[in-house]
Amino acid sequence: MTERLVVIGGDAAGMSAASQARRLRGPDDLAITAFERGHFTSYSACGIPYYVGGVVTDAEELIARSPDEHRARGIDVRLRHEAVEIDTGRGRVRVRDLDAGTERWEGYDRLVVATGSVPTRPKLPGADAAGVHGVQILDDGIAIRRVVEQDRPARVVVVGGGYIGLEMAEAMVQQGLRVSLVDAAEQPMRTLDADMGAIVADALRGIGVDLYLGERIEGFDTSGGRVTAVRTAERTLPADLVVLGLGVRPNVEMARAAGIGIGASGGIVTDRRMRTGTEGVWAAGDCVQTRHLISGEPVAIALGTHANKQGRVAGIDIGGGYATFPGVVGTAISKLCKMEVARTGLNEREAAAAGFASLSAVVESTTRAGYHPGATTMKTKLVVERRTGRLLGAQIVGEEGAAKRIDGLAIALWNRMTVEEMTGLDLAYAPPFSPVWDPVLIAARKAAELVERDMRS
Amino acid sequence: MTERLVVIGGDAAGMSAASQARRLRGPDDLAITAFERGHFTSYSACGIPYYVGGVVTDAEELIARSPDEHRARGIDVRLRHEAVEIDTGRGRVRVRDLDAGTERWEGYDRLVVATGSVPTRPKLPGADAAGVHGVQILDDGIAIRRVVEQDRPARVVVVGGGYIGLEMAEAMVQQGLRVSLVDAAEQPMRTLDADMGAIVADALRGIGVDLYLGERIEGFDTSGGRVTAVRTAERTLPADLVVLGLGVRPNVEMARAAGIGIGASGGIVTDRRMRTGTEGVWAAGDCVQTRHLISGEPVAIALGTHANKQGRVAGIDIGGGYATFPGVVGTAISKLCKMEVARTGLNEREAAAAGFASLSAVVESTTRAGYHPGATTMKTKLVVERRTGRLLGAQIVGEEGAAKRIDGLAIALWNRMTVEEMTGLDLAYAPPFSPVWDPVLIAARKAAELVERDMRS
Repeated sequence: MTERLVVIGGDAAGMSAASQARRLRGPDDLAITAFERGHFTSYSACGIPYYVGGVVTDAEELIARSPDEHRARGIDVRLRHEAVEIDTGRGRVRVRDLDAGTERWEGYDRLVVATGSVPTRPKLPGADAAGVHGVQILDDGIAIRRVVEQDRPARVVVVGGGYIGLEMAEAMVQQGLRVSLVDAAEQPMRTLDADMGAIVADALRGIGVDLYLGERIEGFDTSGGRVTAVRTAERTLPADLVVLGLGVRPNVEMARAAGIGIGASGGIVTDRRMRTGTEGVWAAGDCVQTRHLISGEPVAIALGTHANKQGRVAGIDIGGGYATFPGVVGTAISKLCKMEVARTGLNEREAAAAGFASLSAVVESTTRAGYHPGATTMKTKLVVERRTGRLLGAQIVGEEGAAKRIDGLAIALWNRMTVEEMTGLDLAYAPPFSPVWDPVLIAARKAAELVERDMRS
Repeated sequence: MTERLVVIGGDAAGMSAASQARRLRGPDDLAITAFERGHFTSYSACGIPYYVGGVVTDAEELIARSPDEHRARGIDVRLRHEAVEIDTGRGRVRVRDLDAGTERWEGYDRLVVATGSVPTRPKLPGADAAGVHGVQILDDGIAIRRVVEQDRPARVVVVGGGYIGLEMAEAMVQQGLRVSLVDAAEQPMRTLDADMGAIVADALRGIGVDLYLGERIEGFDTSGGRVTAVRTAERTLPADLVVLGLGVRPNVEMARAAGIGIGASGGIVTDRRMRTGTEGVWAAGDCVQTRHLISGEPVAIALGTHANKQGRVAGIDIGGGYATFPGVVGTAISKLCKMEVARTGLNEREAAAAGFASLSAVVESTTRAGYHPGATTMKTKLVVERRTGRLLGAQIVGEEGAAKRIDGLAIALWNRMTVEEMTGLDLAYAPPFSPVWDPVLIAARKAAELVERDMRS
């Protein structure tokens, strides 16, 4: 008998699950239907700022695999269909056809919940006015770029200084617009320590963004239903376009209502094969909770690369194979014009919150041999456990060629290396790629010396 | 009483040892004298091709720390002084002042042997003719560049297709010269497998180098003591300038004569603190033998980054601290105009020689998200142990941004990761830096699938 797999959500996690299940099980064995409320499947949400900024010309370029390509592979994709209720007892999902306005129940034997995340929208007067845009799905990106190109808004205010906020601010600058960025925190990118965040703040100012840090949004002024300004306690910032980059939270209300377990982080709880506690139901992507392998804490991190991996693991499990998603170490990377920023593991604040006593080493170095053309400077910070010297986290801020070095540090973290051990690592050296001591090694040396000095004191 | 530390060799290993010893012990406690037969200290030998090619303007730029800078730090540097004999019984070194032509004995309590390597020179007629240059010390690089700029040789023949040979061939092309490259092997870069080496061969031809592979040098034609051609069994290649890139071997004759133990690889045997078997004698750099952590075999690898690390470890040990150099995994990287090449661990041939049964996965991918400007293609190859799926080695060939990814693979190797485990690695993703599946992850996935399929067959 043909089993029925239903996938809720047609982006990275859902379609990865569907694809892997299809790879391992033929259509006679497993029928696969995916419901997606938007117009697109398998697109790069992380690419939206580059589309808005004009670096990517066409929204189509962001689509890794179109609905028709999925269909050709034997996956029945239904666009503009929104799942609105899961009935785990009877194994069915209530689905709304958004265009026809009709609803029906779809039965499943296996279900993948890949409902993604919902952007944080401030509950403030005017937050729903025209001209206030979130950045969540590709349709949002298309809408913002249309506004940018057609209306040429004189003043743009970006609310929130996280990755999306910064990337959108850069996109607006690239489009030649005047941009302000407001954040309640005293620094942009709170996933960095203050010293590294300050460099990012300077870079933002350097590309012409007006920064208002430590200012909380209190409301939006409107006129005729359109936003005209953003208000903080300190000032009123005129705005023709407001972009919200206040972060996201797992989209789990439907799963919660169905009795599927939700964890402390707000995401759906799964095991390492992405099985939820409910028989026959898997979950993957931005809507799930995972484990931070360094802090040991449950976390919900919305990132395409995790969504793809988790979807793959769920699909392999459904397909009868074996794969696991053990957790994350919190790696992230971003580019702000010429500046590259990356981090992994725990920063100082996070290390303290997780109960670690830590030391930090910060080193400045060049990305290539100092005499090689194209060498730029970069700053590397390592957060290290006292006494043991175990690496707990790393941050990099620099120019071309700096930030991807975070991968090596993430792998060292993953393997619970100490900085002393890391000083011996056999990293690639040639003048066009690295100084004779790679910045990662210089930082490890400095950190190892600090640990030793601390032990003697 | 003040101890006397004598260092033989004033480049990376020797001066790193001297510097670390000085950092940990003051001048009243330890007197440090370093003898260097050349004119320079602490320079980047790996930078020579970039100086010859004109990418680096001035030879001085390759010098990390001048003799005077070392002297200011309390290290007595004697240039143009060559150690010619070690008397371990009486703790003294016979040193020749090359300019004065005199010799004297210098006593030591502790000795660091950092005599580097000697380039392989073919024992063939004409090999010592004028116009035939090795590339070993900075003086060689200065001599070659002078020839290139003043004589504008019409035809250059590079002998040997390893890293130095290729980098020198590129340097000559950059100087606008016509270049042929001859190698006895059927591919350049024998540290790569044939499939990856073929890409490098194509790139060499692409920049205009005439390649003669599988041709062994039989001699050099000369006229009036100057080289005029390079002869192989197949042809005679006219040459006004010949550059030898035939590799190097550890420079150990003086150490051997002194009874210091030499290993199977031809390098001086040390423990992980860089102590030789002879009381009071350390060794570091190109002249030592180290352990390949994947094959388990003793190897001698001449590379500035190892020399620096080993020198540091020896110096810390002499200074009373604790540090170790556990071995290498065989990481190397190179650039050939736009092409980047890197490798780590064992290639297929080396894996077989070390007794591993292996499988290989090769994947093609982009360095950034495919839609992001500047994305280029790259090829990643993983060599993996059958059954266990343990990573044994990796090779990367690609363009801008490709090759430094070898570091992550080297760290995975170092930690004995399996490719299955690697599929979960939390590597940095954002469109300007990586596709949503980093090439390293794509390769790990493919390799994990191969291992599983092989197990079922």
